[in-house]
Amino acid sequence: MLEKTTRMNYLYDFYQSLLTPKQRNYMSLYYLDDYSLGEIAEEYEVSRQAVYDNIKRTEAMLEDYEQKLLLFQKFQQRHKLLHRLKTHIAERYPNDEELMKLVLELEKLE
Amino acid sequence: MLEKTTRMNYLYDFYQSLLTPKQRNYMSLYYLDDYSLGEIAEEYEVSRQAVYDNIKRTEAMLEDYEQKLLLFQKFQQRHKLLHRLKTHIAERYPNDEELMKLVLELEKLE
Repeated sequence: MLEKTTRMNYLYDFYQSLLTPKQRNYMSLYYLDDYSLGEIAEEYEVSRQAVYDNIKRTEAMLEDYEQKLLLFQKFQQRHKLLHRLKTHIAERYPNDEELMKLVLELEKLE
Repeated sequence: MLEKTTRMNYLYDFYQSLLTPKQRNYMSLYYLDDYSLGEIAEEYEVSRQAVYDNIKRTEAMLEDYEQKLLLFQKFQQRHKLLHRLKTHIAERYPNDEELMKLVLELEKLE
């Protein structure tokens, strides 16, 4: 469950701009702010079931976007390579600030 | 016009998985294979106007996705940084194959 939460947090981060405002509200309360379904239902004056259905549909949409665009997968692959690059540079060329700066700029684009 | 074609080629490349099969067919004939609107209309037995409308709508969708996800913009920024990294490494550490390999692997993820 924790693993799923982490994954959903990442997917939400990458694809939130493709969601509707309502989907974004429910998802961020549920996944980022750790509200329960009941608390969200009360906040928006809808049934718990309606919140549940909306969140389930949004989760499926996020997985569908990921299957098509692979942003999270590519992020993870780049993240690993950038880590190896930084380690290599720190060990071999600790005084080459220009080189490390370029890698850190790449990392900032994530 | 050439600039627009190049941009559409890139946007199509990044977001084609989010389009319908028909949108993909029209766009790839028009932008990749350089068919005219009339030729596409003939091929699919629809009006030239229908092809035109479909392609205009698809172009707007691609621009909308780019505004939301910035995949092309980030690709260009990474591309520049990777180029500077490769130049720096080739000048300073031409014998460090491990270092260059890591950068080339990053580049392959684009």
